[in-house]
Amino acid sequence: MEKVKLETNILKREIVNIFKKFGLSSNHASISANALINAELVGAYGHGLSRLKMYCDRIKKKVINPKPKIKIKKISQSISHIYANNSIGFVAADIAIKTAIKNAKKTGIGMVAVKNSGHYGLSGYYAEQAVKKNLVTMIYTNAPPAVAPHGALKSLFGTNPICFGTPTGSKIPFILDTSISMINRGKIRVAARNNQKIPEGVALDKFGRPTTDAKKALKGVQLPIAGFRGSGLAWMVDILSGVLTGGNHAGRVKDPFDDFSGPQNIGHLFITFKTNLFVKNYNTRIKDNIKKIKKLPRVKGIKEIMYPGQNKYKRLKTNSKKKIKILTSTKKDLEILKN
Amino acid sequence: MEKVKLETNILKREIVNIFKKFGLSSNHASISANALINAELVGAYGHGLSRLKMYCDRIKKKVINPKPKIKIKKISQSISHIYANNSIGFVAADIAIKTAIKNAKKTGIGMVAVKNSGHYGLSGYYAEQAVKKNLVTMIYTNAPPAVAPHGALKSLFGTNPICFGTPTGSKIPFILDTSISMINRGKIRVAARNNQKIPEGVALDKFGRPTTDAKKALKGVQLPIAGFRGSGLAWMVDILSGVLTGGNHAGRVKDPFDDFSGPQNIGHLFITFKTNLFVKNYNTRIKDNIKKIKKLPRVKGIKEIMYPGQNKYKRLKTNSKKKIKILTSTKKDLEILKN
Repeated sequence: MEKVKLETNILKREIVNIFKKFGLSSNHASISANALINAELVGAYGHGLSRLKMYCDRIKKKVINPKPKIKIKKISQSISHIYANNSIGFVAADIAIKTAIKNAKKTGIGMVAVKNSGHYGLSGYYAEQAVKKNLVTMIYTNAPPAVAPHGALKSLFGTNPICFGTPTGSKIPFILDTSISMINRGKIRVAARNNQKIPEGVALDKFGRPTTDAKKALKGVQLPIAGFRGSGLAWMVDILSGVLTGGNHAGRVKDPFDDFSGPQNIGHLFITFKTNLFVKNYNTRIKDNIKKIKKLPRVKGIKEIMYPGQNKYKRLKTNSKKKIKILTSTKKDLEILKN
Repeated sequence: MEKVKLETNILKREIVNIFKKFGLSSNHASISANALINAELVGAYGHGLSRLKMYCDRIKKKVINPKPKIKIKKISQSISHIYANNSIGFVAADIAIKTAIKNAKKTGIGMVAVKNSGHYGLSGYYAEQAVKKNLVTMIYTNAPPAVAPHGALKSLFGTNPICFGTPTGSKIPFILDTSISMINRGKIRVAARNNQKIPEGVALDKFGRPTTDAKKALKGVQLPIAGFRGSGLAWMVDILSGVLTGGNHAGRVKDPFDDFSGPQNIGHLFITFKTNLFVKNYNTRIKDNIKKIKKLPRVKGIKEIMYPGQNKYKRLKTNSKKKIKILTSTKKDLEILKN
């Protein structure tokens, strides 16, 4: 895949200007640009600039509201409900995690549900914000149909990530952000755009046959991790982020790339709580936990046992020092959207 | 495997008497007997009577406290911390879920952490109690080392179940109770006791070689679901139930069958919340969710797409009408423990 190099600041300014041109406020444009650039820097390209054109298309087709009136309804000191008014997902999620942080700081535990939102990128990006404020967090969101429930021949669940974050007593947070599909849908999408193959055993084509063709996989179904177990976890996420919040569920979240017939109405759920609710020395305890696990004898070829989020953090630090590399195809999108 | 049939009531009375003989109060003996019998009735034999002798042995060796002074510390209206004083796990978990239910009923959300507890059987058994009170629940507990962290050659994580329960608007609750190992350790234990083989791909022997020999598997490591992802989920459960609560973690939970050098000090975390925090029609919404998924086209040979907990409920109903069947080896344990 051909790539071009750009200064991160220049790229950010370009994205902000594009979003503003499409009607977002400076603040919302900046929040959205930061999330997209973060995804590029951590190497989660399927959640980065490859989606910029899609967001702009959805604004143009009026299925993302560039000037949302977002309401925060207070249910209790701990619990809030956010009506996102079909905002771009980044903005709804940004308000949600900030509210969840505030609630947890006040009462020990925060729970924030969001409805009428859209795709917000990486759950881990929001988890990091809570962890920086010394909170533990659990985040759930659903997504368009991609994974078949166990026993079914048709996709219905999204890749429905399960996200968990905690401070570690060191500067690198523990951020587990795992979709319950064998592979992240964004990765298949990037592979399809660039005519690359996907690994075996992660997807079936529309006839239910195993495939390594990314384009065929997008039309078929993705496989959940661990059969019935992964399917159950995906179902749990659909209930927590959709049924509970007032968002779409049971396969009704529209594919943002292909379906412009209405807003996505995605739901999200953010849970946050203090680390010192039950122990005074949480940081010492988790440091010890990680140290003990890292000291285990290792499988041949493994240099270090890594905790979730560690690799991503390393990529972020390395990539932040350099110019940002983006696909030539993405650069072309940028040029078209700018003008 | 040879089995004998018993009336459930008679069996329960025998177990209660055994626990009382070993020093438990009538109430604690009854709570523990109910949990064990429930495990038998739902077909989770690895969590049922096959463990009775172990519990008694641990009481005899003074690593389970038959007369615990359990303290419930109120952190806030929503949050409580329970010091289980090395009680048998069933009793600590029973108090914990009841406290979590009370907290959620009062404030919308409840969170209860437990420390100094022991193995409590099936998480789903406690989830059912919350669901019966019309609450959503998430339950985490750790367990003795059985699964190797991704990249490690030694077991450290327990089979660390992730449990999620919700009302469904029908009498059969949605109870996901999935260990993050390919197979539940209790099942391997039962297979080992009865000289049965275990499936391929679920465990390695102590030299790191794949094995279907249950006894060798108990000495080796169990494999997590989905590699790095399952390992990350196990790590999350270790943090939530161990690091956070004040319980043991990082592989320090003792094997209840093999290690009598001290109490297990297992930690548990119970989260409960109301279904109607964000929507008025939760039951209608989840009924619709389940209906839509059940209507999907099915894989050949699948009669019905089942939600988690449905099969277990059916087994419970069927088995409750009949005499209870227990292994001859278990019956022998009972006779010895009685006298």
